[in-house]
Amino acid sequence: MIVLGSTGSIGVAALEIASAFSREVEALAAGRNISLLNQQIATYRPKFVAIADERDLGGLEARGARVFVGGDGICEMLEIASSSLVINAIVGFAGLKPSLHTQYCKKTLALANKESLVAGGWLLDTKAITPIDSEHFGLWYLHTNRAIRRLVITASGGAFRDTPIHAIKEQTKSSALKHPNWQMGQKITIDSASMMNKIFEILEAYWLFGYKEIEAFIERSSSVHALIEFVDGSTTAHFALPDMRLPIAYAIDPIKAAATAIIPPMDLSQILSIRFDPIGLDRYPLYGLKDMLLEDPKLGVIVNASNEQAIAHFLQDRIKFGALSEIVEQALSVFAPRLTELDSYHAIASLDAQVRAWCDELIQSRIS
Amino acid sequence: MIVLGSTGSIGVAALEIASAFSREVEALAAGRNISLLNQQIATYRPKFVAIADERDLGGLEARGARVFVGGDGICEMLEIASSSLVINAIVGFAGLKPSLHTQYCKKTLALANKESLVAGGWLLDTKAITPIDSEHFGLWYLHTNRAIRRLVITASGGAFRDTPIHAIKEQTKSSALKHPNWQMGQKITIDSASMMNKIFEILEAYWLFGYKEIEAFIERSSSVHALIEFVDGSTTAHFALPDMRLPIAYAIDPIKAAATAIIPPMDLSQILSIRFDPIGLDRYPLYGLKDMLLEDPKLGVIVNASNEQAIAHFLQDRIKFGALSEIVEQALSVFAPRLTELDSYHAIASLDAQVRAWCDELIQSRIS
Repeated sequence: MIVLGSTGSIGVAALEIASAFSREVEALAAGRNISLLNQQIATYRPKFVAIADERDLGGLEARGARVFVGGDGICEMLEIASSSLVINAIVGFAGLKPSLHTQYCKKTLALANKESLVAGGWLLDTKAITPIDSEHFGLWYLHTNRAIRRLVITASGGAFRDTPIHAIKEQTKSSALKHPNWQMGQKITIDSASMMNKIFEILEAYWLFGYKEIEAFIERSSSVHALIEFVDGSTTAHFALPDMRLPIAYAIDPIKAAATAIIPPMDLSQILSIRFDPIGLDRYPLYGLKDMLLEDPKLGVIVNASNEQAIAHFLQDRIKFGALSEIVEQALSVFAPRLTELDSYHAIASLDAQVRAWCDELIQSRIS
Repeated sequence: MIVLGSTGSIGVAALEIASAFSREVEALAAGRNISLLNQQIATYRPKFVAIADERDLGGLEARGARVFVGGDGICEMLEIASSSLVINAIVGFAGLKPSLHTQYCKKTLALANKESLVAGGWLLDTKAITPIDSEHFGLWYLHTNRAIRRLVITASGGAFRDTPIHAIKEQTKSSALKHPNWQMGQKITIDSASMMNKIFEILEAYWLFGYKEIEAFIERSSSVHALIEFVDGSTTAHFALPDMRLPIAYAIDPIKAAATAIIPPMDLSQILSIRFDPIGLDRYPLYGLKDMLLEDPKLGVIVNASNEQAIAHFLQDRIKFGALSEIVEQALSVFAPRLTELDSYHAIASLDAQVRAWCDELIQSRIS
């Protein structure tokens, strides 16, 4: 198998499951954590390795692996490699091109990269994708051939779920990175606090399952990740400890996964209390984008680019938390009216770059 | 289709679904509520009608239907009727013989009668049974081909879930019949307060699904009815409003049921709080029988007979609530050591009668 983004938390867990399932690792791609990549190369002895930046070539210990560099390098590596399974755990918009290329190479795409669907779902064969995250895995696990009324995913509520509403706008990086339930990367922790993460997941669910009836609720214990409301009046729910090894194991080998104790079972009696609270727009204004995005999912390119760019500035303490939603909404007001078909990666990447440049200018003008 | 126990709440709901699904009702069997039976005959115009007691023949308005009387009458009716589906919603031990005869006649058994499995599961083709109650329907709904670790069903906790433990033994009929969550028949309301109902349902789950790893938890909102813990670490749950039309509709026509809004969906945001509390033996001593019964399920005959007999006396205010568990436990201590193979209905009915007579004597001696 091939693991793109091998040094992130998903990539590390994927390699762990590959070992447990005696699955050969043919290729690894990583960003700039070269020391961990070197360790992974020593352990898994891949035939191919890709890194993001040629400046890291000097520190790389490839141990005979053929080395590729940059996004084009990943695509070339995908063409040469013979593995049928690609786990794409690259973070951000950079994950879209490898996703498209994985399917172009007739390989199976196991997807942890949200942006592939948010900013390019219409270019992918979405029915052939195996989702790697708690919510979409839960929906997949619960999916049957019974008629569905609505898909439901849950949110933790993020870092500001109990912050007085008037104080949220002024929050900064240090408080936004304190997620109540678990440790994740910085970008997703901010997206969790702003509820943008759920907007993205709702869009992903639309692409993966083909339904537009999707809702999210805050479930503070993070015990329930997904529910399906069926037409008959039944609702089913997926509970699990928040541990990505579960969806990863199913992506690698669903038959072996279903027969293996991948993660410890939940102790039902230890769950303090489960409630499903509606997501209030006063606390989470970005959640108000849901219906517009489901109506016209290609707006995801604008939302993703402006959000990713705004968060980059936020993480440098250049803007406050309240600016995130303002910037995304302003970007939408500027770029949505001129949205084109976006029927190629090139068209998407071009719009993405325009939106980012526009955001940089806007933020620069706000600061100065 | 054929409805046995047509004037009880399950029977009434089954006839309602039969109308909605345009399913012809060929035969009805009822106990002593002849006025409701007469209404049902007028509405559904069955070819065959069975009643429990010949003294009610005078009040019966059969409208041309052929009439049968008593348990043997039901069996004869099952032989003559051409319908392939039998809904057995008879209450109590009297339901066992019609269940056996339904399968003897090669008809499909949709089972609401708990005692058929508790007191005779080993004589039935349990894999061919469609369960009609919230818990086993929930398990059936959640069941997949993934490996199962444990089946879980929920309990409301019954009338005495908040009564001080020292005061439970002295409770009487009037307080025991106040179920916190819904209205049911008297017997099952008492069984709910004593947790005997869950013991029976655990035995039923064993017969229906073939697993001995089964647990029950108290879920006070009665929103979640069943959960399955899978080997992989996932747990799935079935939520629904407590409305028996859902399992009944699936028993009658699973394809139509899955495409129809049988009952209103749960409003997730209206569920106040979900917790799964272990069932304490100080409050529910009968729950302590679980492991013994799963070890030797034929003990269900003794438990069922002694419990049914004790409740009959309790409902006449002849014994207090605390006596129920004492009588069942004494009956087990007397009859369990002499348990035989019970490989026929006759053997089961004979033991059932012995246990009941013994209970009557015991209770008479306690009173006098």
